[in-house]
Amino acid sequence: MELLKQRILKDGIVRPGNVLKVDSFLNHQMDIPLINEIGKEFRHRFEGVPVTRILTIEASGIGIACITAQYFNVPVVFAKKTQSLNLDSALFRTKVQSFTHNRIYDVVLSKKYLTPDDHVLLIDDFLANGNALMGLIDIVKESGATLEGAGIVIEKGFQDGGRRIRNMGVRVESLAIIDSMTEDSLTFR
Amino acid sequence: MELLKQRILKDGIVRPGNVLKVDSFLNHQMDIPLINEIGKEFRHRFEGVPVTRILTIEASGIGIACITAQYFNVPVVFAKKTQSLNLDSALFRTKVQSFTHNRIYDVVLSKKYLTPDDHVLLIDDFLANGNALMGLIDIVKESGATLEGAGIVIEKGFQDGGRRIRNMGVRVESLAIIDSMTEDSLTFR
Repeated sequence: MELLKQRILKDGIVRPGNVLKVDSFLNHQMDIPLINEIGKEFRHRFEGVPVTRILTIEASGIGIACITAQYFNVPVVFAKKTQSLNLDSALFRTKVQSFTHNRIYDVVLSKKYLTPDDHVLLIDDFLANGNALMGLIDIVKESGATLEGAGIVIEKGFQDGGRRIRNMGVRVESLAIIDSMTEDSLTFR
Repeated sequence: MELLKQRILKDGIVRPGNVLKVDSFLNHQMDIPLINEIGKEFRHRFEGVPVTRILTIEASGIGIACITAQYFNVPVVFAKKTQSLNLDSALFRTKVQSFTHNRIYDVVLSKKYLTPDDHVLLIDDFLANGNALMGLIDIVKESGATLEGAGIVIEKGFQDGGRRIRNMGVRVESLAIIDSMTEDSLTFR
Protein backbone atom coordinates (compact mmCIF):
# COMPACT_ATOMS: atom_id res chain seq x y z
CA MET A 1 0.00 0.00 0.00
CA GLU A 2 1.86 2.97 -1.39
CA LEU A 3 0.34 5.68 0.86
CA LEU A 4 1.36 3.71 3.94
CA LYS A 5 4.88 2.99 2.69
CA GLN A 6 5.44 6.67 1.92
CA ARG A 7 4.24 7.57 5.41
CA ILE A 8 6.57 5.02 7.02
CA LEU A 9 9.50 6.46 5.02
CA LYS A 10 8.52 10.02 5.99
CA ASP A 11 7.64 9.60 9.67
CA GLY A 12 8.88 6.18 10.81
CA ILE A 13 11.95 6.20 13.04
CA VAL A 14 14.28 3.22 13.33
CA ARG A 15 15.81 2.65 16.75
CA PRO A 16 18.43 0.12 17.88
CA GLY A 17 17.05 -3.36 18.58
CA ASN A 18 14.93 -3.56 15.40
CA VAL A 19 12.44 -1.06 16.78
CA LEU A 20 10.37 0.89 14.24
CA LYS A 21 8.59 3.80 15.87
CA VAL A 22 5.41 4.76 14.00
CA ASP A 23 3.79 6.36 17.01
CA SER A 24 3.19 9.66 15.22
CA PHE A 25 0.49 8.11 13.01
CA LEU A 26 -0.34 4.51 13.95
CA ASN A 27 -0.06 3.41 17.57
CA HIS A 28 0.10 6.36 19.94
CA GLN A 29 -1.15 9.28 17.89
CA MET A 30 -3.50 7.92 15.22
CA ASP A 31 -4.01 9.55 11.82
CA ILE A 32 -7.67 8.67 11.26
CA PRO A 33 -7.87 9.44 7.49
CA LEU A 34 -4.83 7.20 6.93
CA ILE A 35 -6.40 4.46 9.04
CA ASN A 36 -9.57 4.76 6.97
CA GLU A 37 -7.49 4.12 3.85
CA ILE A 38 -5.95 1.13 5.64
CA GLY A 39 -9.44 -0.18 6.45
CA LYS A 40 -10.53 0.19 2.81
CA GLU A 41 -7.40 -1.65 1.66
CA PHE A 42 -8.12 -4.57 4.02
CA ARG A 43 -11.67 -4.71 2.62
CA HIS A 44 -10.20 -4.76 -0.90
CA ARG A 45 -7.68 -7.51 -0.07
CA PHE A 46 -10.37 -9.67 1.54
CA GLU A 47 -13.05 -8.90 -1.07
CA GLY A 48 -15.67 -11.63 -1.21
CA VAL A 49 -14.41 -13.33 1.96
CA PRO A 50 -17.34 -14.06 4.32
CA VAL A 51 -16.22 -12.30 7.51
CA THR A 52 -18.61 -12.24 10.49
CA ARG A 53 -16.26 -10.84 13.16
CA ILE A 54 -12.99 -8.94 13.34
CA LEU A 55 -10.74 -10.09 16.18
CA THR A 56 -7.83 -8.03 17.51
CA ILE A 57 -5.82 -7.68 20.70
CA GLU A 58 -5.55 -4.66 22.97
CA ALA A 59 -4.37 -2.03 22.82
CA SER A 60 -3.02 -0.68 19.54
CA GLY A 61 -5.02 -3.03 17.31
CA ILE A 62 -8.38 -1.79 18.57
CA GLY A 63 -8.63 1.53 16.73
CA ILE A 64 -7.49 0.01 13.43
CA ALA A 65 -9.95 -2.86 13.87
CA CYS A 66 -12.87 -0.51 14.60
CA ILE A 67 -12.22 1.71 11.58
CA THR A 68 -11.74 -1.39 9.39
CA ALA A 69 -14.95 -3.00 10.69
CA GLN A 70 -16.95 -0.13 9.16
CA TYR A 71 -16.02 -1.49 5.72
CA PHE A 72 -16.97 -5.09 6.63
CA ASN A 73 -20.18 -4.27 8.56
CA VAL A 74 -19.25 -6.66 11.36
CA PRO A 75 -18.58 -6.31 15.10
CA VAL A 76 -15.09 -6.07 16.56
CA VAL A 77 -14.00 -8.29 19.43
CA PHE A 78 -10.76 -7.54 21.21
CA ALA A 79 -8.80 -10.02 23.31
CA LYS A 80 -7.70 -8.62 26.67
CA LYS A 81 -4.24 -8.91 28.12
CA THR A 82 -5.16 -9.78 31.70
CA GLN A 83 -8.27 -11.16 33.27
CA SER A 84 -10.50 -8.25 34.16
CA LEU A 85 -12.85 -8.56 37.11
CA ASN A 86 -15.65 -7.60 34.72
CA LEU A 87 -15.13 -10.45 32.30
CA ASP A 88 -17.17 -13.60 32.34
CA SER A 89 -15.72 -16.74 33.84
CA ALA A 90 -16.25 -18.53 30.51
CA LEU A 91 -13.09 -17.45 28.72
CA PHE A 92 -10.82 -18.62 25.93
CA ARG A 93 -7.26 -18.26 27.25
CA THR A 94 -3.78 -18.21 25.80
CA LYS A 95 -0.38 -16.70 26.60
CA VAL A 96 1.51 -14.16 24.50
CA GLN A 97 5.10 -13.03 24.87
CA SER A 98 5.48 -9.34 24.06
CA PHE A 99 8.57 -8.30 22.11
CA THR A 100 7.96 -4.64 22.96
CA HIS A 101 7.33 -5.04 26.67
CA ASN A 102 9.56 -8.06 27.28
CA ARG A 103 6.99 -9.98 29.31
CA ILE A 104 4.37 -12.71 29.00
CA TYR A 105 0.69 -11.77 29.06
CA ASP A 106 -2.36 -13.87 29.73
CA VAL A 107 -4.75 -13.16 26.89
CA VAL A 108 -8.45 -13.86 27.29
CA LEU A 109 -11.64 -13.61 25.28
CA SER A 110 -15.18 -14.25 26.45
CA LYS A 111 -16.56 -17.43 24.88
CA LYS A 112 -19.78 -15.56 24.11
CA TYR A 113 -18.16 -13.53 21.34
CA LEU A 114 -16.63 -16.23 19.14
CA THR A 115 -18.62 -19.31 18.11
CA PRO A 116 -18.16 -22.18 15.61
CA ASP A 117 -20.43 -20.28 13.21
CA ASP A 118 -18.05 -17.32 12.99
CA HIS A 119 -15.70 -16.46 10.15
CA VAL A 120 -12.90 -14.42 11.63
CA LEU A 121 -10.56 -11.80 10.24
CA LEU A 122 -7.64 -10.95 12.53
CA ILE A 123 -6.38 -7.35 12.48
CA ASP A 124 -3.24 -5.98 14.12
CA ASP A 125 -0.81 -3.13 13.68
CA PHE A 126 2.44 -5.14 13.65
CA LEU A 127 3.62 -8.63 12.79
CA ALA A 128 7.20 -9.35 13.90
CA ASN A 129 7.91 -12.63 15.69
CA GLY A 130 4.21 -13.46 15.40
CA ASN A 131 3.52 -14.12 19.06
CA ALA A 132 0.45 -11.89 19.35
CA LEU A 133 -1.02 -13.26 16.12
CA MET A 134 -0.31 -16.86 17.23
CA GLY A 135 -2.22 -16.12 20.43
CA LEU A 136 -5.23 -14.90 18.43
CA ILE A 137 -5.02 -17.96 16.16
CA ASP A 138 -5.02 -20.21 19.27
CA ILE A 139 -8.19 -18.50 20.45
CA VAL A 140 -9.91 -18.91 17.06
CA LYS A 141 -8.96 -22.61 16.98
CA GLU A 142 -10.24 -23.14 20.50
CA SER A 143 -13.55 -21.47 19.58
CA GLY A 144 -14.13 -23.69 16.53
CA ALA A 145 -14.65 -20.61 14.33
CA THR A 146 -13.25 -20.45 10.77
CA LEU A 147 -10.12 -18.34 10.41
CA GLU A 148 -10.36 -16.40 7.14
CA GLY A 149 -7.04 -14.61 7.44
CA ALA A 150 -5.06 -11.83 9.05
CA GLY A 151 -4.72 -8.20 8.01
CA ILE A 152 -1.50 -6.62 9.26
CA VAL A 153 -0.51 -2.99 8.81
CA ILE A 154 3.29 -3.41 9.05
CA GLU A 155 5.16 -6.71 8.86
CA LYS A 156 8.82 -6.94 9.81
CA GLY A 157 9.74 -9.36 7.03
CA PHE A 158 13.19 -9.95 8.51
CA GLN A 159 11.64 -11.54 11.59
CA ASP A 160 10.14 -15.00 11.63
CA GLY A 161 6.43 -14.49 12.35
CA GLY A 162 5.07 -13.99 8.83
CA ARG A 163 6.80 -17.07 7.42
CA ARG A 164 5.80 -19.20 10.39
CA ILE A 165 2.13 -18.24 10.23
CA ARG A 166 1.83 -18.47 6.42
CA ASN A 167 3.39 -21.95 6.68
CA MET A 168 0.48 -22.94 8.90
CA GLY A 169 -1.80 -22.20 5.94
CA VAL A 170 -3.10 -18.89 7.30
CA ARG A 171 -3.68 -16.14 4.73
CA VAL A 172 -1.71 -13.09 5.90
CA GLU A 173 -2.14 -9.76 4.10
CA SER A 174 0.43 -7.19 5.22
CA LEU A 175 0.07 -3.69 3.79
CA ALA A 176 3.79 -2.93 4.14
CA ILE A 177 6.48 -5.60 4.53
CA ILE A 178 9.88 -4.35 5.62
CA ASP A 179 12.78 -6.53 4.48
CA SER A 180 15.55 -4.56 6.13
CA MET A 181 15.96 -1.40 8.14
CA THR A 182 18.77 0.64 9.66
CA GLU A 183 18.78 4.16 11.04
CA ASP A 184 19.57 5.42 7.53
CA SER A 185 17.60 3.16 5.21
CA LEU A 186 14.49 1.06 5.04
CA THR A 187 13.67 -1.44 2.28
CA PHE A 188 10.20 -2.77 1.49
CA ARG A 189 9.60 -6.18 -0.09
CA MET B 1 -29.00 9.34 24.13
CA GLU B 2 -32.06 7.14 23.77
CA LEU B 3 -30.56 4.46 21.51
CA LEU B 4 -27.76 3.90 24.00
CA LYS B 5 -30.06 3.81 27.02
CA GLN B 6 -32.30 1.24 25.33
CA ARG B 7 -29.26 -0.88 24.55
CA ILE B 8 -28.03 -0.70 28.15
CA LEU B 9 -31.48 -1.78 29.37
CA LYS B 10 -31.57 -4.63 26.83
CA ASP B 11 -28.01 -5.98 27.04
CA GLY B 12 -26.36 -4.48 30.14
CA ILE B 13 -25.90 -6.86 33.07
CA VAL B 14 -25.56 -5.61 36.64
CA ARG B 15 -23.23 -7.60 38.88
CA PRO B 16 -22.50 -7.30 42.58
CA GLY B 17 -20.03 -4.53 43.48
CA ASN B 18 -21.64 -1.88 41.26
CA VAL B 19 -20.35 -3.57 38.12
CA LEU B 20 -22.24 -2.89 34.89
CA LYS B 21 -21.21 -5.30 32.17
CA VAL B 22 -21.69 -3.85 28.70
CA ASP B 23 -19.12 -6.06 27.08
CA SER B 24 -21.54 -7.37 24.46
CA PHE B 25 -21.58 -4.00 22.65
CA LEU B 26 -19.13 -1.49 24.11
CA ASN B 27 -15.88 -2.72 25.64
CA HIS B 28 -15.10 -6.28 24.63
CA GLN B 29 -17.33 -6.92 21.64
CA MET B 30 -17.96 -3.56 19.93
CA ASP B 31 -21.13 -2.77 17.98
CA ILE B 32 -19.67 -0.44 15.35
CA PRO B 33 -22.94 1.09 14.02
CA LEU B 34 -23.90 1.95 17.63
CA ILE B 35 -20.46 3.47 18.24
CA ASN B 36 -20.88 5.53 15.07
CA GLU B 37 -24.10 6.93 16.52
CA ILE B 38 -22.21 7.65 19.76
CA GLY B 39 -19.52 9.49 17.76
CA LYS B 40 -22.16 11.60 15.97
CA GLU B 41 -23.79 12.45 19.29
CA PHE B 42 -20.47 13.64 20.77
CA ARG B 43 -19.99 15.82 17.65
CA HIS B 44 -23.50 17.19 18.19
CA ARG B 45 -22.91 17.89 21.91
CA PHE B 46 -19.62 19.66 21.20
CA GLU B 47 -20.86 21.46 18.08
CA GLY B 48 -18.79 24.59 17.38
CA VAL B 49 -16.13 23.69 19.93
CA PRO B 50 -12.64 24.05 18.40
CA VAL B 51 -11.19 20.58 18.98
CA THR B 52 -7.72 19.77 17.57
CA ARG B 53 -7.10 16.41 19.26
CA ILE B 54 -9.09 13.68 20.93
CA LEU B 55 -7.33 12.17 23.94
CA THR B 56 -8.27 8.83 25.46
CA ILE B 57 -6.68 6.09 27.53
CA GLU B 58 -6.07 2.49 26.56
CA ALA B 59 -7.68 0.14 26.05
CA SER B 60 -11.45 0.39 25.81
CA GLY B 61 -11.51 4.12 25.02
CA ILE B 62 -9.48 3.75 21.84
CA GLY B 63 -12.10 2.35 19.47
CA ILE B 64 -14.74 4.84 20.60
CA ALA B 65 -12.24 7.70 20.23
CA CYS B 66 -11.22 6.61 16.71
CA ILE B 67 -14.81 6.32 15.45
CA THR B 68 -15.67 9.67 17.10
CA ALA B 69 -12.60 11.37 15.60
CA GLN B 70 -14.02 10.79 12.12
CA TYR B 71 -16.75 13.34 12.96
CA PHE B 72 -14.26 15.90 14.30
CA ASN B 73 -11.58 15.44 11.60
CA VAL B 74 -8.81 15.37 14.19
CA PRO B 75 -6.17 12.82 15.27
CA VAL B 76 -6.60 10.57 18.28
CA VAL B 77 -3.90 10.29 20.92
CA PHE B 78 -4.14 7.55 23.51
CA ALA B 79 -2.36 7.54 26.87
CA LYS B 80 -0.62 4.26 27.66
CA LYS B 81 -0.87 2.41 30.92
CA THR B 82 2.78 1.45 31.32
CA GLN B 83 5.95 2.79 29.84
CA SER B 84 6.60 0.91 26.62
CA LEU B 85 10.19 0.46 25.47
CA ASN B 86 9.09 2.03 22.19
CA LEU B 87 7.94 5.31 23.70
CA ASP B 88 10.01 8.42 23.68
CA SER B 89 11.77 9.47 26.85
CA ALA B 90 9.95 12.81 26.76
CA LEU B 91 6.71 11.82 28.44
CA PHE B 92 3.87 13.34 30.38
CA ARG B 93 3.24 11.03 33.34
CA THR B 94 0.53 10.48 35.88
CA LYS B 95 -0.88 7.65 38.00
CA VAL B 96 -4.37 6.16 37.77
CA GLN B 97 -6.06 3.76 40.17
CA SER B 98 -8.26 1.30 38.31
CA PHE B 99 -11.60 0.40 39.87
CA THR B 100 -11.99 -2.61 37.55
CA HIS B 101 -8.52 -4.07 37.96
CA ASN B 102 -7.88 -2.96 41.55
CA ARG B 103 -4.36 -1.67 40.89
CA ILE B 104 -2.47 1.55 40.17
CA TYR B 105 -1.17 2.20 36.67
CA ASP B 106 1.51 4.56 35.45
CA VAL B 107 -0.05 6.45 32.56
CA VAL B 108 2.16 8.14 29.99
CA LEU B 109 1.83 10.24 26.85
CA SER B 110 4.58 11.40 24.54
CA LYS B 111 5.09 15.16 24.82
CA LYS B 112 5.16 15.37 21.03
CA TYR B 113 1.44 14.74 20.73
CA LEU B 114 -0.02 17.38 23.03
CA THR B 115 1.14 21.01 22.88
CA PRO B 116 -0.04 24.34 24.32
CA ASP B 117 -1.71 25.06 20.95
CA ASP B 118 -4.02 22.07 21.27
CA HIS B 119 -7.72 22.08 22.17
CA VAL B 120 -8.48 18.70 23.65
CA LEU B 121 -11.63 16.61 23.88
CA LEU B 122 -11.35 13.64 26.25
CA ILE B 123 -13.28 10.49 25.31
CA ASP B 124 -13.82 7.40 27.46
CA ASP B 125 -16.30 4.58 27.80
CA PHE B 126 -17.00 4.91 31.55
CA LEU B 127 -16.95 7.57 34.25
CA ALA B 128 -17.33 6.18 37.77
CA ASN B 129 -14.97 7.42 40.47
CA GLY B 130 -13.25 9.58 37.86
CA ASN B 131 -9.72 8.34 38.34
CA ALA B 132 -8.96 7.65 34.68
CA LEU B 133 -10.46 10.98 33.60
CA MET B 134 -8.52 12.82 36.34
CA GLY B 135 -5.34 11.24 34.99
CA LEU B 136 -6.11 12.53 31.50
CA ILE B 137 -6.92 15.99 32.90
CA ASP B 138 -3.55 15.99 34.70
CA ILE B 139 -1.82 15.25 31.42
CA VAL B 140 -3.69 18.03 29.57
CA LYS B 141 -2.79 20.51 32.34
CA GLU B 142 0.85 19.49 32.25
CA SER B 143 0.92 19.95 28.47
CA GLY B 144 -0.48 23.49 28.60
CA ALA B 145 -3.21 22.55 26.11
CA THR B 146 -6.79 23.84 26.46
CA LEU B 147 -9.25 21.29 27.82
CA GLU B 148 -12.55 21.68 25.94
CA GLY B 149 -14.42 18.93 27.74
CA ALA B 150 -15.00 15.25 28.16
CA GLY B 151 -17.34 12.94 26.28
CA ILE B 152 -18.33 9.87 28.28
CA VAL B 153 -20.48 7.02 27.05
CA ILE B 154 -21.78 5.79 30.43
CA GLU B 155 -21.55 7.69 33.71
CA LYS B 156 -22.28 5.98 37.00
CA GLY B 157 -24.06 8.95 38.53
CA PHE B 158 -24.14 7.32 41.97
CA GLN B 159 -20.34 7.43 42.16
CA ASP B 160 -18.36 10.55 42.80
CA GLY B 161 -16.35 11.16 39.62
CA GLY B 162 -18.80 13.21 37.57
CA ARG B 163 -19.57 15.64 40.39
CA ARG B 164 -15.91 16.01 41.30
CA ILE B 165 -14.82 16.74 37.74
CA ARG B 166 -17.71 19.09 36.89
CA ASN B 167 -16.90 20.99 40.11
CA MET B 168 -13.42 21.61 38.67
CA GLY B 169 -15.13 23.50 35.83
CA VAL B 170 -14.69 20.76 33.26
CA ARG B 171 -17.55 20.31 30.80
CA VAL B 172 -18.60 16.66 30.98
CA GLU B 173 -21.11 15.29 28.48
CA SER B 174 -22.26 11.78 29.40
CA LEU B 175 -24.57 10.05 26.94
CA ALA B 176 -26.19 7.91 29.63
CA ILE B 177 -26.09 8.69 33.35
CA ILE B 178 -27.16 5.89 35.66
CA ASP B 179 -28.54 7.07 38.98
CA SER B 180 -29.12 3.67 40.49
CA MET B 181 -28.83 0.05 39.52
CA THR B 182 -29.59 -3.34 40.98
CA GLU B 183 -29.75 -6.75 39.37
CA ASP B 184 -33.43 -6.12 38.63
CA SER B 185 -33.66 -2.43 37.80
CA LEU B 186 -31.63 0.41 36.37
CA THR B 187 -32.61 4.10 36.52
CA PHE B 188 -31.26 6.82 34.26
CA ARG B 189 -31.00 10.49 35.31
